[in-house]
Amino acid sequence: MNLSTRTETDSMGAIEVLSDRYWGAQTQRSVHHFPIGVARFKWQRPIIRALGLLKKAAALANAELGELPQDVAQLISRAADEVIDGRLDDHFPLVVFQTGSGTQSNMNANEVIANRAIELAGGVLGSKKPVHPNDHVNRGQSSNDTFPTAMHVAVVEQLHLRLFPAVSALRNTLAAKAQQYRHLVKTGRTHLQDATPITLGQEIGAWVAQLDFGLGAVRGVLPGLQELAIGGTAVGTGLNAHPLFGDRVAERLAELTGRPFQSAPDKFFALSAHDALVQTSAALRTLSGGLMKLANDIRWLASGPRCGIGELRIPENEPGSSIMPGKVNPTQCEAMTMVCVQVFGNDAAVAFAGTQGNFQLNVYKPVMVHNVLESIDLIADACHAFDHYCAQGLEPNEAVIDEHLERNLMLVTALNRHIGYDLAAQIAKRAHHEGLTLREAALATGQLSAEDYDRWINPLEMTRPG
Amino acid sequence: MNLSTRTETDSMGAIEVLSDRYWGAQTQRSVHHFPIGVARFKWQRPIIRALGLLKKAAALANAELGELPQDVAQLISRAADEVIDGRLDDHFPLVVFQTGSGTQSNMNANEVIANRAIELAGGVLGSKKPVHPNDHVNRGQSSNDTFPTAMHVAVVEQLHLRLFPAVSALRNTLAAKAQQYRHLVKTGRTHLQDATPITLGQEIGAWVAQLDFGLGAVRGVLPGLQELAIGGTAVGTGLNAHPLFGDRVAERLAELTGRPFQSAPDKFFALSAHDALVQTSAALRTLSGGLMKLANDIRWLASGPRCGIGELRIPENEPGSSIMPGKVNPTQCEAMTMVCVQVFGNDAAVAFAGTQGNFQLNVYKPVMVHNVLESIDLIADACHAFDHYCAQGLEPNEAVIDEHLERNLMLVTALNRHIGYDLAAQIAKRAHHEGLTLREAALATGQLSAEDYDRWINPLEMTRPG
Amino acid sequence: MNLSTRTETDSMGAIEVLSDRYWGAQTQRSVHHFPIGVARFKWQRPIIRALGLLKKAAALANAELGELPQDVAQLISRAADEVIDGRLDDHFPLVVFQTGSGTQSNMNANEVIANRAIELAGGVLGSKKPVHPNDHVNRGQSSNDTFPTAMHVAVVEQLHLRLFPAVSALRNTLAAKAQQYRHLVKTGRTHLQDATPITLGQEIGAWVAQLDFGLGAVRGVLPGLQELAIGGTAVGTGLNAHPLFGDRVAERLAELTGRPFQSAPDKFFALSAHDALVQTSAALRTLSGGLMKLANDIRWLASGPRCGIGELRIPENEPGSSIMPGKVNPTQCEAMTMVCVQVFGNDAAVAFAGTQGNFQLNVYKPVMVHNVLESIDLIADACHAFDHYCAQGLEPNEAVIDEHLERNLMLVTALNRHIGYDLAAQIAKRAHHEGLTLREAALATGQLSAEDYDRWINPLEMTRPG
Amino acid sequence: MNLSTRTETDSMGAIEVLSDRYWGAQTQRSVHHFPIGVARFKWQRPIIRALGLLKKAAALANAELGELPQDVAQLISRAADEVIDGRLDDHFPLVVFQTGSGTQSNMNANEVIANRAIELAGGVLGSKKPVHPNDHVNRGQSSNDTFPTAMHVAVVEQLHLRLFPAVSALRNTLAAKAQQYRHLVKTGRTHLQDATPITLGQEIGAWVAQLDFGLGAVRGVLPGLQELAIGGTAVGTGLNAHPLFGDRVAERLAELTGRPFQSAPDKFFALSAHDALVQTSAALRTLSGGLMKLANDIRWLASGPRCGIGELRIPENEPGSSIMPGKVNPTQCEAMTMVCVQVFGNDAAVAFAGTQGNFQLNVYKPVMVHNVLESIDLIADACHAFDHYCAQGLEPNEAVIDEHLERNLMLVTALNRHIGYDLAAQIAKRAHHEGLTLREAALATGQLSAEDYDRWINPLEMTRPG
Repeated sequence: MNLSTRTETDSMGAIEVLSDRYWGAQTQRSVHHFPIGVARFKWQRPIIRALGLLKKAAALANAELGELPQDVAQLISRAADEVIDGRLDDHFPLVVFQTGSGTQSNMNANEVIANRAIELAGGVLGSKKPVHPNDHVNRGQSSNDTFPTAMHVAVVEQLHLRLFPAVSALRNTLAAKAQQYRHLVKTGRTHLQDATPITLGQEIGAWVAQLDFGLGAVRGVLPGLQELAIGGTAVGTGLNAHPLFGDRVAERLAELTGRPFQSAPDKFFALSAHDALVQTSAALRTLSGGLMKLANDIRWLASGPRCGIGELRIPENEPGSSIMPGKVNPTQCEAMTMVCVQVFGNDAAVAFAGTQGNFQLNVYKPVMVHNVLESIDLIADACHAFDHYCAQGLEPNEAVIDEHLERNLMLVTALNRHIGYDLAAQIAKRAHHEGLTLREAALATGQLSAEDYDRWINPLEMTRPG
Repeated sequence: MNLSTRTETDSMGAIEVLSDRYWGAQTQRSVHHFPIGVARFKWQRPIIRALGLLKKAAALANAELGELPQDVAQLISRAADEVIDGRLDDHFPLVVFQTGSGTQSNMNANEVIANRAIELAGGVLGSKKPVHPNDHVNRGQSSNDTFPTAMHVAVVEQLHLRLFPAVSALRNTLAAKAQQYRHLVKTGRTHLQDATPITLGQEIGAWVAQLDFGLGAVRGVLPGLQELAIGGTAVGTGLNAHPLFGDRVAERLAELTGRPFQSAPDKFFALSAHDALVQTSAALRTLSGGLMKLANDIRWLASGPRCGIGELRIPENEPGSSIMPGKVNPTQCEAMTMVCVQVFGNDAAVAFAGTQGNFQLNVYKPVMVHNVLESIDLIADACHAFDHYCAQGLEPNEAVIDEHLERNLMLVTALNRHIGYDLAAQIAKRAHHEGLTLREAALATGQLSAEDYDRWINPLEMTRPG
Repeated sequence: MNLSTRTETDSMGAIEVLSDRYWGAQTQRSVHHFPIGVARFKWQRPIIRALGLLKKAAALANAELGELPQDVAQLISRAADEVIDGRLDDHFPLVVFQTGSGTQSNMNANEVIANRAIELAGGVLGSKKPVHPNDHVNRGQSSNDTFPTAMHVAVVEQLHLRLFPAVSALRNTLAAKAQQYRHLVKTGRTHLQDATPITLGQEIGAWVAQLDFGLGAVRGVLPGLQELAIGGTAVGTGLNAHPLFGDRVAERLAELTGRPFQSAPDKFFALSAHDALVQTSAALRTLSGGLMKLANDIRWLASGPRCGIGELRIPENEPGSSIMPGKVNPTQCEAMTMVCVQVFGNDAAVAFAGTQGNFQLNVYKPVMVHNVLESIDLIADACHAFDHYCAQGLEPNEAVIDEHLERNLMLVTALNRHIGYDLAAQIAKRAHHEGLTLREAALATGQLSAEDYDRWINPLEMTRPG
Repeated sequence: MNLSTRTETDSMGAIEVLSDRYWGAQTQRSVHHFPIGVARFKWQRPIIRALGLLKKAAALANAELGELPQDVAQLISRAADEVIDGRLDDHFPLVVFQTGSGTQSNMNANEVIANRAIELAGGVLGSKKPVHPNDHVNRGQSSNDTFPTAMHVAVVEQLHLRLFPAVSALRNTLAAKAQQYRHLVKTGRTHLQDATPITLGQEIGAWVAQLDFGLGAVRGVLPGLQELAIGGTAVGTGLNAHPLFGDRVAERLAELTGRPFQSAPDKFFALSAHDALVQTSAALRTLSGGLMKLANDIRWLASGPRCGIGELRIPENEPGSSIMPGKVNPTQCEAMTMVCVQVFGNDAAVAFAGTQGNFQLNVYKPVMVHNVLESIDLIADACHAFDHYCAQGLEPNEAVIDEHLERNLMLVTALNRHIGYDLAAQIAKRAHHEGLTLREAALATGQLSAEDYDRWINPLEMTRPG
């Protein structure tokens, strides 16, 4: 391999960079100084794309406000398009664990776009002419406002592109199952103990309602995420940016993405804290709590096949055991719940980081956005797999459901209104301890007739189906 | 002490209870079986009051729906009033760590109200006549819907009564300070390093904006909290409750409390998951993150008095050290940040518990509401103390602020637009390494005149005050 | 109530204190400035006792080293004895959320002991003669070394007095059950699915092994906890303390408590970080994870009674439901698992706080030790209740166990060695899908004889009982 | 690209696999069903290597015990060597979020090794002859014991290979600095306020002591990690494994790795809980808490350069700001503290997962080991970078240190022993409020002479340097 290099410079001096890379001196210094988690923690598409979108929007806004010549702005815009499209991903080598303001990734974007723009203009890479990474690409900007802007843009886009569709699809699969089984009566369970009857539709419907709550919680954070730090520059005052710059960039970003981005009203807050991300992470945690609940319910209801609850059947996707032949395990539930605990862990990191701002800056920006984006990805992926390879194939085992329902002593609850709690309790206890059916134990009291019993104990009516 | 007792009974048989206590057999069994954290984890006012409110509302609703005789309902209502008012707090001996559905606390309320109502009616305590704890006080209810209803009622009330006023008062104190110092220019700081200037008003204003965000996050959970489980009874179907019971109880609770409570649309979800509490806890966590940020900023800005930053003065409330005479410490900041880490811990418990529901019930209800209520209390108390004993007495140390501002090399940033980033960087570096003032280093370049420098470097203008 | 007062003074001046309280000016100032969580967060016995032990040990050590007159030391020692015994608990009004170094609680101890010693000497309360709270009781000490010393003493004592006995008792109950049922064969379960057989003794034995691991983890932190900060005074240098003071106090404390306390080798570390507490909290978390596992296993194995797994019977301690008569719930398991999530929450607070030290001090001391002590108490209480009201009464439901074992398809695993995994898998699948017994499906293959089957499939042998 | 395939089979039937991959049917099914986090969550070297080591050790042990023909064992061993060396990493496509027992990764290893062994023997890929993935490579094993064995092996190796060297190197750099500056007196700080003097060596030495404590905590988990689940097979009974298999495999692994692995004494515990990993994660958390403390101390001590504390100088590695020319930021501290919060998050996931075992299995194995390995990697990488690019270049700014020391009012503490706490407090307060030097304020009291003052106030002596 011919590792030819060129010389790039920054305010610290000169440094060699591989000839086939657009990045400049500051990116190179970061590659050198932050060899941390390199195999797994390089920035991925969402952040790179968001930086591209932002740099394009900034160039257009600066040109419009007379802060950049039109031709320079156009060069930047064209180069930024390539960043947006993913054509230059190989020119973004930096990792999460770097400067806590994301300065080096902001400079990575500035340098790559400047050099690519220089190339488009026929200039010399590294010459900073006719496009300078700081004076032009970063015009009116600071890492302190660009990076949190990119954070919000990336998270909003990923929520729309990945999270909402994947979770909604699973939700809709379950909603259809809830409708399908709205009259299938089965044993309810509280405290893991047999309880009064419900329908399978009601049981599944609770999962749908919980997903809806979780999705609502995530949607509720969008207004905060749509407020952008851009325009605050270094400390929030907007020094060196045109007074209208923040508003204009937000407008451009709204056009480019189709999302209603706005300039944040208090830039000092927008740089020094990332509570909208903390709230996003918390909402993802709540959502994952709901996913954990339903995945656990499904695997317990499918437990067995012969020595468990066994009321649900789930698809047999793979051999379950390397030693126990014929075993089928609830593997999608397991992957889902592992994702959920990961989301909990990611959230703990985000919330901790969110408390550690000082003065005009929180320097945990990269680790915060990384964890939020990872949680979004994992939930989306896991919901997609779970939907296709588990939820869609869920089926009731009606024989088991019926057998359980028939044996369930808690049908006695329907008698409370007729014979009082205390007598009803005696009946249930007697049936339990003597191994009787509930009907047998009820009639044995002599306090109600067989006709009463049959009229009062009607499992489907007890569920009050809609 | 005369420990005379009476006999109380439940479906398990008879048990002795102290004569001067209204509680019955089930409460007594819980006292016996759950001696866990007794010194600190007995239910406090908010939950007891909420149970009283709920039992009153339920009795009125049942009477209205023809499910209870008016006289019985009135007796229950009168006894419940005493629970609401706090007159019967000594009759609620149970702790958080009991049945996970709060069954025993629901029964505690049923038993106390029944016996007090019996007493009001001239009956015999323990006779269950004319008011039965299950058949009358608990009419149309289950612990599984009453306890989560009481949880929501208690949390909503405490947010309004305690959290919002205390946090808002602190917020308003700070907002007034921000206004007062809106033109006091000082050094901004990013990465803990000197940065471009801001005003003290801007710095404080960021804290206000962050508190507003946190308060908004908490307010955002109210709609979820205002939805009540009542009407779902044991598993969500509403078995044994009048179909309109949930709606009517919610209406009564809204009247009694002045808060817009509603019957939850999906009772199965309302019993099996408590995501509104999880979201509440998360919002309290976000709010406490903001409090931690501002408390940390204040103690760092007040650090010194002679070897720290020293730009703020805080009240001297107490001797700071048992060994170092004359030391004054930022103790309110310390109490506040300890509260914040406690809120983080409480939140971790709530969120964990929130994932552990199974089927039709989550049996971590008591520990969830306990932690949310504790966080509300601690934040409210800490904000009150912090407001009175720290925030109201905050003052700038203008001599130090001015001295710092004058020495701050980052004023150089204002030159970027005039001489470019690279030359500006050279000036700052030279001043830093040679111990020059920025002005000296700038003029030494020969690239700008003294007039240029003085025109371009204007700290107050650099802050863009409103 | 006669609220007569006396005047107490400190370096800030005079303040009125109730006449019947021994505390002085600094305690009173703290009561005033820190009304945070007053109902639940006052220091309890363990910390008060530890402060008493420390002050006694310090007085004796100072006298021995010639730093205090013998008579003053004896007065202090006598007053401290009353603090140790609990006779003066009402004179410790302060709460957790105060100065982060615990300064005010250290001064509370100094003031109470000084005034009580003055009283014993016939002096005037508040006169500081003949015993001065700072110059005598706090001699050679700073809050910065006394409070962390008291933290370690309190935690070590509570581990020995409360945690180890309670957890060990539960462990021994379970170990006896494991022995009792060492040959009772039952279905094993992995992935919640039926798996190859185990004995009930093996199943319970795993819980015992996990408790032993957890207990071992907690015991492993004792060496760190036994190292005491005392002797470091304000910043770790030991300024104003006799060079041998730390060693001598540790020796006295070892004598007074019977625990092998030592002077910490690096006092700077001992004041600025509390990693031994963080590790203690983590070990308590691990232990509680084990408790959660066994409590969950027990409630699942006891699930039913008719529509669950139902292989274990647990004691019926109380009526399970306010609406479902005759229901019995695994309430001890629920209390235990709620304790476990609380311990997780407490641990999150401790670990977070542990990271936030700055320079020579971590100012989250009170909240750290509070949470560790609370976790110890809760685990001990919950283990005690669980042992008595659940574990001791655990019994197998042999009819269900036998029925499950007979139906379990995973007995097929024993055939792997004889007919290979692939053929064994076919047999299990066929039995599952056609509703056959395993034996029927095996013989239907024609690949093994009935004799082979009966020889190869022996559930008890498959468990390899000891 | 020619995507030719071959047919592979398992107990569920046939499936196509790319011809140039060694994996088989079960791996392929997992690729299909678990497209979760594919870009970042594929297993990396440590787990793949550990599976290779285990399969080799198992084959050798089986051959020794007469459970496998020597030639088959040799073929397996040769193929496993290639897995160990990393030559077959491209044949391990599976991700963390799969079956919770790691079954599919165990089968991935079985399949790759079987096919490669078949190839070495001149057989047909996919034929399972002469080496069968289950009957031979997985002989005497189950995923339930192999995967947790691989987890422990991987973690133990990574601790030794990565964590201990990197953290120790940083520790040693700091220890040398502590020695170098053991007599450089400076201001101590408690509560962020000026306190009595220390030496820079003492300050740095506290960091060293804390790292030593953290390293000790991590070393303390090794005995638990060195106990291996192997020999337990499916549920812990060891069914289908030779009774000596666990011991022999552990011996072979000890030989292959040089680490003292042993067969775990209770296999049921070893499969159903992973508390050794939970404790490992907790110890890594404690260690990272220490790293966070020192990184925070360093950046605060280096704050400024002109408006902060400014007592330390750190290397200038890169331009600090894209907008503020000449700014140098504590970027290594920022990367380090971001790593620390990530480790906290990872730990939260591990501990949560650790509680969720049921019966004979914990099905969160992959996510647990993933997070532990990631934490090890991140801490090691961050320590390496921090050591080289920050710690080694740390230097005191002696001018600032001296200036601060001279102004520090807390030198007054040395007067306590001579003039009492109360008078000393008056002196410090007067100096503070009137802007006097401590000496001026002391002499102004008339209570001590200039000679007294100069004799009593000796900052270096106050530090009690070693």
